[in-house]
Amino acid sequence: ATPKHVRTLASVHRASSIFAPHDEFPERHIGPDDQETASMLSKLGYKSMDAFVGDTVPPKIRVPTSDISNDTIAAFSESQLHARAKSLGAQNKPFKSYIGMGYHNAVVPPVILRNVIENPQWYTPYTPYQPEVAQGRLESLVNFQTMVMSLTSMDIANASMLDEATAAAEGMVMAFVASNQKKKKFLVDSGVLPQTIAVLRTRAKGFGIELVIADASSAIEDSALRSEICGVLVQYPDVNGHVKDFGALAESAHSAGALLVCGTDLLALTMLKPPGEWGADIVLGNSARFGVPAGYGGPHGAFFAVTDKLKRKMPGRLIGRSRDTTGKPAYRLALQTREQHIRREKATSNICTSQALLANMAAMYAVYHGPAGLARIADKVHGFTQVFKSAIQSVGYKVSNPTSFDTITVNVTSVTKSADALHEASAAAGINLRRVDNEHVGVTFDESVTPQELVKLVNVFASAASSPSVSLSDLKEPAGSSIPPALKRTSPYLHHPVFNKHHSETEMLRYINHLASKDIGFMIPLTWPEFSNVHPFVPYDQVKGYHTIIKELEQDLAKITGFHSTSLQPNSGAAGEYAGLSVIRAYHESRGEGHRDICLIPISAHGTNPASAVMAGLKVVPIKSLPDGSLDLEDLKAKAEKHKDNLAAFMITYPSTFGVFEEGVQDACKIIHDNGGQVYLDGANLNAQIGLTNPATCGGDVCHMNLHKTFAIPHGGGGPGVGPICVAEHLTPFLPSHPAMPEIEDKTIDAVSAAPFGSSSIHLISWAYIKMLGGQGLSESSKIALLNANYMAVRLSGHYSLRYKNQNGRVAHELLIDLAEFDKAAGLKVPDFAKRLQDYGFHPPTCSWPISTFCDAMIQIRKEAEDIITGKQPKDNNLLKNAPHPPSVIALSDAEWNRPYTRREAAYPLPYLEEKKFWPTVSRIDDAYGDLNLICDCPSVEELASL
Amino acid sequence: ATPKHVRTLASVHRASSIFAPHDEFPERHIGPDDQETASMLSKLGYKSMDAFVGDTVPPKIRVPTSDISNDTIAAFSESQLHARAKSLGAQNKPFKSYIGMGYHNAVVPPVILRNVIENPQWYTPYTPYQPEVAQGRLESLVNFQTMVMSLTSMDIANASMLDEATAAAEGMVMAFVASNQKKKKFLVDSGVLPQTIAVLRTRAKGFGIELVIADASSAIEDSALRSEICGVLVQYPDVNGHVKDFGALAESAHSAGALLVCGTDLLALTMLKPPGEWGADIVLGNSARFGVPAGYGGPHGAFFAVTDKLKRKMPGRLIGRSRDTTGKPAYRLALQTREQHIRREKATSNICTSQALLANMAAMYAVYHGPAGLARIADKVHGFTQVFKSAIQSVGYKVSNPTSFDTITVNVTSVTKSADALHEASAAAGINLRRVDNEHVGVTFDESVTPQELVKLVNVFASAASSPSVSLSDLKEPAGSSIPPALKRTSPYLHHPVFNKHHSETEMLRYINHLASKDIGFMIPLTWPEFSNVHPFVPYDQVKGYHTIIKELEQDLAKITGFHSTSLQPNSGAAGEYAGLSVIRAYHESRGEGHRDICLIPISAHGTNPASAVMAGLKVVPIKSLPDGSLDLEDLKAKAEKHKDNLAAFMITYPSTFGVFEEGVQDACKIIHDNGGQVYLDGANLNAQIGLTNPATCGGDVCHMNLHKTFAIPHGGGGPGVGPICVAEHLTPFLPSHPAMPEIEDKTIDAVSAAPFGSSSIHLISWAYIKMLGGQGLSESSKIALLNANYMAVRLSGHYSLRYKNQNGRVAHELLIDLAEFDKAAGLKVPDFAKRLQDYGFHPPTCSWPISTFCDAMIQIRKEAEDIITGKQPKDNNLLKNAPHPPSVIALSDAEWNRPYTRREAAYPLPYLEEKKFWPTVSRIDDAYGDLNLICDCPSVEELASL
Ligand SMILES: Cc1ncc(COP(=O)(O)O)c(C=O)c1O
Ligand SMILES: Cc1ncc(COP(=O)(O)O)c(C=O)c1O
Ligand SMILES: O=C([O-])O
Repeated sequence: ATPKHVRTLASVHRASSIFAPHDEFPERHIGPDDQETASMLSKLGYKSMDAFVGDTVPPKIRVPTSDISNDTIAAFSESQLHARAKSLGAQNKPFKSYIGMGYHNAVVPPVILRNVIENPQWYTPYTPYQPEVAQGRLESLVNFQTMVMSLTSMDIANASMLDEATAAAEGMVMAFVASNQKKKKFLVDSGVLPQTIAVLRTRAKGFGIELVIADASSAIEDSALRSEICGVLVQYPDVNGHVKDFGALAESAHSAGALLVCGTDLLALTMLKPPGEWGADIVLGNSARFGVPAGYGGPHGAFFAVTDKLKRKMPGRLIGRSRDTTGKPAYRLALQTREQHIRREKATSNICTSQALLANMAAMYAVYHGPAGLARIADKVHGFTQVFKSAIQSVGYKVSNPTSFDTITVNVTSVTKSADALHEASAAAGINLRRVDNEHVGVTFDESVTPQELVKLVNVFASAASSPSVSLSDLKEPAGSSIPPALKRTSPYLHHPVFNKHHSETEMLRYINHLASKDIGFMIPLTWPEFSNVHPFVPYDQVKGYHTIIKELEQDLAKITGFHSTSLQPNSGAAGEYAGLSVIRAYHESRGEGHRDICLIPISAHGTNPASAVMAGLKVVPIKSLPDGSLDLEDLKAKAEKHKDNLAAFMITYPSTFGVFEEGVQDACKIIHDNGGQVYLDGANLNAQIGLTNPATCGGDVCHMNLHKTFAIPHGGGGPGVGPICVAEHLTPFLPSHPAMPEIEDKTIDAVSAAPFGSSSIHLISWAYIKMLGGQGLSESSKIALLNANYMAVRLSGHYSLRYKNQNGRVAHELLIDLAEFDKAAGLKVPDFAKRLQDYGFHPPTCSWPISTFCDAMIQIRKEAEDIITGKQPKDNNLLKNAPHPPSVIALSDAEWNRPYTRREAAYPLPYLEEKKFWPTVSRIDDAYGDLNLICDCPSVEELASL
Repeated sequence: ATPKHVRTLASVHRASSIFAPHDEFPERHIGPDDQETASMLSKLGYKSMDAFVGDTVPPKIRVPTSDISNDTIAAFSESQLHARAKSLGAQNKPFKSYIGMGYHNAVVPPVILRNVIENPQWYTPYTPYQPEVAQGRLESLVNFQTMVMSLTSMDIANASMLDEATAAAEGMVMAFVASNQKKKKFLVDSGVLPQTIAVLRTRAKGFGIELVIADASSAIEDSALRSEICGVLVQYPDVNGHVKDFGALAESAHSAGALLVCGTDLLALTMLKPPGEWGADIVLGNSARFGVPAGYGGPHGAFFAVTDKLKRKMPGRLIGRSRDTTGKPAYRLALQTREQHIRREKATSNICTSQALLANMAAMYAVYHGPAGLARIADKVHGFTQVFKSAIQSVGYKVSNPTSFDTITVNVTSVTKSADALHEASAAAGINLRRVDNEHVGVTFDESVTPQELVKLVNVFASAASSPSVSLSDLKEPAGSSIPPALKRTSPYLHHPVFNKHHSETEMLRYINHLASKDIGFMIPLTWPEFSNVHPFVPYDQVKGYHTIIKELEQDLAKITGFHSTSLQPNSGAAGEYAGLSVIRAYHESRGEGHRDICLIPISAHGTNPASAVMAGLKVVPIKSLPDGSLDLEDLKAKAEKHKDNLAAFMITYPSTFGVFEEGVQDACKIIHDNGGQVYLDGANLNAQIGLTNPATCGGDVCHMNLHKTFAIPHGGGGPGVGPICVAEHLTPFLPSHPAMPEIEDKTIDAVSAAPFGSSSIHLISWAYIKMLGGQGLSESSKIALLNANYMAVRLSGHYSLRYKNQNGRVAHELLIDLAEFDKAAGLKVPDFAKRLQDYGFHPPTCSWPISTFCDAMIQIRKEAEDIITGKQPKDNNLLKNAPHPPSVIALSDAEWNRPYTRREAAYPLPYLEEKKFWPTVSRIDDAYGDLNLICDCPSVEELASL
């Protein structure tokens, strides 16, 4: 057994000290080792990383290395960080919350916990822009849509929204748009959740909508109001638990030409007459109680459903069923043109990242429980509510809401002196109740409550009423229900086969795996159970662990961006843009310059930028690009000066979406400041900057980051995301507030999300990532990103024409390949290349790959294209046009095959594929057909039978 | 959105009480629901389950339903059980153990924890008898073999053993067999681990080997002994930490014609001259410190390596590299004929189930860390040992072992009055030291120890010596090493590419997923972190949680089998057989009937039965079967009477391996008892019995169970397993003991495993499974197993001839299909059917499948066979002979294809495969080629280059 190939023992890199932790993260995380880095650098003609970075990042915007180092951001090893997180977790007090208000304790079926939320195949993929390799996740999102459609009885539902409050805001804007932006009032019933109202307030501002908050059913009778309202929002059941009949209200709204928007609860809908049956036009809510823990605010998937006639105006992503070239049914993002090029200046919604992973969890929960299981859970929740109600009534409490599903509002004054006394007693028992006012407390039940906990809760109330305590045997099964008979659900739900087949653990696992096996995906796994079932409105002293993490993450992000303060509230990059622009507007207003409403945006900007500007009430003025991809400074100057009296903001992405560090960024920002504007820096590309430059140095006043791009939050196939904003000191007073957040500054803008600190549970991932890499590792990581991109540029440059390099020939962290020549020469378009990459096992545009293999694949595809250019393969029947090639196509009979290349050339164009190949599951999907024939729910038994 | 297909709300099954838990396990676990069960029963012609069971299980052996019910085994819901397990976990005290003796605290890299140990794709598969669909796990096992070969410098290694102690016993027996069973003495160095010696004692007995325990290097000079010893066992480093040079001993042993067997430690071997370089013939040990937590005893994978000349005698499974029919390299179980038909009466080892999952974890750990990472870990462990040694020497302690890697034995008498005083002090600090004797304590370091823990440990010793305490800054980096220069390793290790490529998290994950994607697998995930890093020799009062579980599992198994007591020590079914037979021998001996040494075994028995009998020192006498598959009672009677003076035991599997409940089982047992023998009932098929009958009622005295078959332990692709034995009251005093188990009864047999309670951490799985199903669910589960098998029998009976039904036409829980007719008519053999099933997505013989789909596949294959019988397809080129068909074969060019069927017929013979297909990764593997050209390690760089 003498080894043939030797890495001598002497060459082994030993640790400098035996006391050093030996699980440092950077060496595991940063792919290339010293030797590989050196060889990549030498391929680019550099002797050192410093020389390379010097040529790549403009010297004038460089920041000192000491800014971001292990002295400013200390590096923890994996085990150290784990220990720290555990000890912080222990500082969160495990109170049981009955607060309700749209947040519940979730019971995650273990099979889903293990195989979806903790499984990288589910949580890591990016948005499924290439549906041929994402059929599994798409099918699951269709389950989500079907579930929502069935429970709400609406015609069509989208594939999730960021949270209930922003979904309500989208509903309001849809109503406004439906009135051709003519009717400026929106009626909000006083039973709507307070955090929803807070977000509506913010969002109404940008569109100049006026909120009227009142008892909707009576307010609508006012004829002056009737003529001005575009829509009405109700909560069903309402915040106090009351189940009201809004049928007449809906009719009245319709006759006034307004839309009826309804916030609701999916579990309640198993028992309640669904909004689609009493006239709602838009129905939305939070799906989290279907197996997604509260996580001190999220993430969770909100849902959004509309009637047929509103479907093409619906915001967010919609998954549709189309067919592939062989006629096989296949799923894909429907109306994708709308999605990818968000309607820019005309947009009224900027939603891009949503909550795909969380929607999938909720859908899996419904698949697992099925209609019968959901009915049993609802029986229990409603039953406990009833039992609790009789128990406390019997000791003298008064219940304010005559009807209920899961929530009771209790007037405590007949028994104790104030609500506070009861809150104190419950806190002593480790219980949180809803704080309503001095006289009332609220109690909401969920699936997690055990009979023992119910007894404990009843006894808190009994003891406050000086009544003897009860035991389980004293509690009777409920007789009857407090749902009004007219509002009882009679229609069946979730009758589709998918919700009626997978109820055993094994079948469920098989189903989950079956779907997962259709996708590619990788990431660092991370879940911290101590942080999961925490209600976002609990008192601060119960969440010290969370707040340490939130504070540290805020500070580190501020350090990294060079700014003064951070808000973690926005749940996506686009939500961050909107929040940042709203902050800028508030700043101008505070200086008496509320009229500033012009926003300059380069034409190369991501579609969310102009959409966010419109939402913030700004007018978009586009700025040209020069042929080399950089900003046209002349044009910028001209427009800034032209609009200087009304200039509000300039939005710039850095490095640009063309992948260059523009030299003139500081000059551009100066032009804006000189003309009274503020600079919004879109930090989605921050991973190219860390420790090298930063948005503040570039000249910005505010930026957002996509933690799901730069700081390791797995994107879950299109969400969750976190889009925090960092701002300079002068903007700090204007950061978003929240009704549940104490110490609100006067100048703050209202909430932009339903939860005060956004999707708190996933902040842990970015926090851990930053802490484990440390300042040095973070900055190393940025350098390697630049190196990888430039290495690829050099390898591909003989084969393809690359756009946009700087004067030293360097790109930033990404590169653009210009494929226009192939269209001219051979009729080959961008999708032909993207689909052919699938045959090589790659999942464009965003997957993790070994870059050298990727270059091999691109070069080989170039050769295949050559055969089409030279006419060796016909333009309409070739390896690229027919790509991708799933196994079912490879197995076509000889008669059917009829292609000018072999099956082997189709499936195994390079040797590495013999060893390891990820197969697409369908062949190319027909987008046009799908958009024409929009089908967005699961097939029924009959449809399945006829397939 | 009006639903088209309706399950009315009224038909939803509501819970009887809202207080009932709504996560009961049986309804999730037991696949068919009431309606499906009824329809299966009616297909079999029954109106009720009772009627069906009455026809299937012989009435005379039925037990009352009340025996196994929710009254005798209470049912917990998932959440109740989870809460209970958590609270039991909290009863285990989290002491830090420095006990060593072959068990260490493991640091599991999170990427491996999440993606291997917690990933059903890795932990659920059965033994990879069908290598075409198990290439991933097989490749990983080859990594394990390569790692062991490289670190030990031996020529060949197997794919794991049950534990270090049984591996040493196998080494001893190999040495004995190498002497043609002539030399009856085996020299054991006194530095060998005590639990190893205990197991050797038990095992020596069966073969009549005499152990000589002494200082081996001097004892071997005794010329009388020299002529009698077949082998020598040493421990390197020894139990006290001493690193001794055994080179001269090896030479001396060889010149005496004896083999040198060496127990060792893989981490130490990164620093020590490997046993293969100083003359060892057999090298073994525990691989658990490579990332497998101690788990209060296991499971973990032992390793076993030998020189080239011993390779075909090596016990256990060996994975070899062969090639498939297209010439592509492919892995498989080598020498499988040996494995499947264990050499029966001539066998000297019964090992079947081993520890595949744990071997894979250890291999992944080595892949992840690579040689440089392992060197750093060893540096740290050795460095800490050195630092500790100087620190305690400086306060007056004497260290007994002059050389060391990770273990120090300390004479405490110069400083304190006794070892006990020090143990008390350390216990007060939450620390366990090794108990050596009144004067000495032992301390062993491992990767998990932090600098802070080291300081704490030093201070326990300092304070006992009334010295001031130290802080981290007082501890110096170690100068030099206490490994003797001549024993320092100079040869490189783990130079194979696989150990030098996958060191980043992402690459590791990609590698793990790449391998996993080649396999099929499903199971219930279950890991309980509170139970993982617990040393098996800690005091009882630190493991109260564990002992509650152990006791309850023992009691429930006794109830289920109808016996009096249980031992959980055996780590596999075969180990249970051996333990049970050893108990029987001890019983006979206690009655002065030690001469009884005849064991009757039906020819249909599993190969492990006769092998275990031989190991227990019994002579095997085979018993015939009747043509209907049942035992030949006449033959049994004749043999029992013939051997009545020496009859020790009868081994019977029930229901039989032919899948029938034999009517005569009680008569058979009576015959044995009447002739002075004891009955061993092989309970591997217990899942057909629970609540219907039991081994005691059938007439047995002892049985083993395969918890990995009947009680949900995932088999991890060939291990772990647990093979507890239950015995009648008269055998109870003889159950296995253990040196670390207090209150040893005099009559007990010695240990059969290294750990006192076997693989404790996985007992939790069976415990949870039993508790969650409850008595009724368990018994329901057995009934459904019977129903499934009989349903399949009916569906297949028109198409295939089935062997072995009872007089009512019923089979038990399995059925045998007779394929002999196809060999005659078309030259088709059993593997042709098995391989063709792979094309249908099935993994014969043991995978979880929807039975009706499986029947469809079998019926379709029958049609394909018909085409060969009728000559439509030639006998040497057809769908069955060429199966399986991986994508690389489907993609063959037209010229190469040349088969009398289409690619579609090959790959998609039934429609369900279009939707969902698991592909084999290679085509049929050539076993003969592989056995002739035995290659059992990873390819080197050169080999990879030439592939
Ligand atoms: C440059 C840029 N800005 C903004 C966004 C929007 O981020 P999100 O999808 O999180 O809303 C993206 C998203 O990809 C982006 O690339
Ligand atoms: C009837 C029977 N007995 C014994 C055994 C041996 O069990 P193990 O593989 O756990 O050693 C088996 C294994 O499958 C078996 O089927
Ligand atoms: O492993 C078995 O022999 O079933």
